[in-house]
Amino acid sequence: MQIDTKTVREFCERLFCAYGFSADESITITDVLLRADLYGIESHGIHRLVRYHDEITTGQVEVKAKTQIVHETGISANIEANKAMGQLVGVEAMKLAIQKAKTSGCGMVTVRNSNHYGIAAYYTEMAAAENLIGVSMTNTEAICVPTFGSQAMTGTNALALAMPADPIVFSYDASTTVVPRGKLEVYKKNGQPLPDLWALDANGKPCSDAAVVIENIINKAGGGIAPLGGIGTLHGGHKGYGLSVIVDLFSAVISGGLTSNYVNRQPSHTGICHYFMAIDYGIFGDKALIKANMSKFLQEIRDSKKAEGHPRIYTHGELEAELMSQRINTTIPVSEKTYEEMNSIAELLNCKKIDV
Amino acid sequence: MQIDTKTVREFCERLFCAYGFSADESITITDVLLRADLYGIESHGIHRLVRYHDEITTGQVEVKAKTQIVHETGISANIEANKAMGQLVGVEAMKLAIQKAKTSGCGMVTVRNSNHYGIAAYYTEMAAAENLIGVSMTNTEAICVPTFGSQAMTGTNALALAMPADPIVFSYDASTTVVPRGKLEVYKKNGQPLPDLWALDANGKPCSDAAVVIENIINKAGGGIAPLGGIGTLHGGHKGYGLSVIVDLFSAVISGGLTSNYVNRQPSHTGICHYFMAIDYGIFGDKALIKANMSKFLQEIRDSKKAEGHPRIYTHGELEAELMSQRINTTIPVSEKTYEEMNSIAELLNCKKIDV
Repeated sequence: MQIDTKTVREFCERLFCAYGFSADESITITDVLLRADLYGIESHGIHRLVRYHDEITTGQVEVKAKTQIVHETGISANIEANKAMGQLVGVEAMKLAIQKAKTSGCGMVTVRNSNHYGIAAYYTEMAAAENLIGVSMTNTEAICVPTFGSQAMTGTNALALAMPADPIVFSYDASTTVVPRGKLEVYKKNGQPLPDLWALDANGKPCSDAAVVIENIINKAGGGIAPLGGIGTLHGGHKGYGLSVIVDLFSAVISGGLTSNYVNRQPSHTGICHYFMAIDYGIFGDKALIKANMSKFLQEIRDSKKAEGHPRIYTHGELEAELMSQRINTTIPVSEKTYEEMNSIAELLNCKKIDV
Repeated sequence: MQIDTKTVREFCERLFCAYGFSADESITITDVLLRADLYGIESHGIHRLVRYHDEITTGQVEVKAKTQIVHETGISANIEANKAMGQLVGVEAMKLAIQKAKTSGCGMVTVRNSNHYGIAAYYTEMAAAENLIGVSMTNTEAICVPTFGSQAMTGTNALALAMPADPIVFSYDASTTVVPRGKLEVYKKNGQPLPDLWALDANGKPCSDAAVVIENIINKAGGGIAPLGGIGTLHGGHKGYGLSVIVDLFSAVISGGLTSNYVNRQPSHTGICHYFMAIDYGIFGDKALIKANMSKFLQEIRDSKKAEGHPRIYTHGELEAELMSQRINTTIPVSEKTYEEMNSIAELLNCKKIDV
């Protein structure tokens, strides 16, 4: 079903207010969540309301949490999030990185003991909107099996970067696994066998049965998803594995938080960690010229020769921006299941249901 | 054949002196080159002497080049390399990044108009040896075809990061393509068909004939290697494609140099660009504690459950360090072809041949 974007936004804001977040906080959380739906990344949008509901009601997310800067320099900060809502911490941390970049050329902020923060691109694009390079990373519960292993040790561990360009910002945002968990769910639902490179059983062997892999992930029984590059080293799986370790380094290791293999291991907190960086690229030369260089390079890629059967080459962030421009003043797609979940939550919170 | 490491070192130093590099410069260039052979990355070591010979004698590399800082702040610099030898620029630029990191917490140095600089890990490990995080990237001649394209637009575009840890530094160094070009050469030599995900013909279709792909690359006739994740989007090829653009952003775009699609397009210069970063991770908290966190995480990964048939999980840089410890005081493997090339070059330069 399609629901008016404004209606969904108002509904989500009502919901977060009902949990006890302030009106401003509810607007921020909703904006991050809805951005995923506007971009066509349904897995990270209102589809997750039910998970956030569980985390808030079980106390993994502390509605009234106050974050605390535990270490700070002119170009850096380390934030103890005290189990705050990930979207609120994310926006706060990237604002701090942006402020430092404007003053000192660069700002790096690491965050520990937070929660799921939605799409990483939301934060990197905050920096790009201020004419800065934005970087963000986040760890998650371990789901990614290192090369030659059979046990998940790193998360989907997203890595995102945005760089201003005309006519469209370059905005990269991707997990360091070969696919996110959501893709396995789709294959399971359709009864399709998984491609050989994607997932491993509890013994570390390739496994094409999505149901088995998901069951093992839920029960922490071993196996999981392969890193970007797939199982083994033939297609570079060791590269994706290394990138996922790098994400844990910047989010969890330097913040003193929990690495992916300890995330979501206790009922009281998730322990998710993030990293944010903003760079004023004027520290390397004339900003207008550098931005023009980037715009030219991206345009050359888009204009380069296409593969047979492919009319278009996209640069990162293009597709999402186009979808958003369609959806922002019209409707977003909402699955029946999500619609039902939204109204069940509203009922539990004595909150007005969604009007369609 | 196996040749005494010390003998190879002395030979290379003689050779670079014969080109007109100073004794110190020859020691530096040789040290970077040999590190690749010590690490088992033969493609980037003395195997390349013949290519460096061509670049030096045709003037793509200027032996007497003076580099020039064209923009500088307390945390950054932009270096015009004026066609200097890549290894010399690389060491100079990383030293500058390290110095800035020690003074200001972080140093970022971008370099334009340089040449091939050997293995990226050499530079990142310079930073790690100073108890800093080191990052380096370099673009190269375009060989990587963007997702849905049929024309190479980015290079193998290596991305490297080193982080101090006990007992062994974490040292990631990998191309953002699914495989480096050297892998295609091996398949061609063995008459083996390439895996489906690796390479594209001139029309952007998967191509398993290594000879065809290499021929097209040499003639710039279209096609090339797929980004990390392979051809198309099924296994995340769009992720590797984005990472390769990020490498061009930091090396070529912000330096005002040539992006990969313009590298090696003229006989007078290659135009290769690099990026170097050093971070004093003490800007986030207690360094001893952070380093211990990293050591613990890496150890947990190495100790995690292995896949059937795999007795060991490596962390990045482990294998290379082990090989080096064996080879540094003994011998390195040298192919017959490389041995002949080395002596041909020595003859051309009126230089003493290698003693075996």
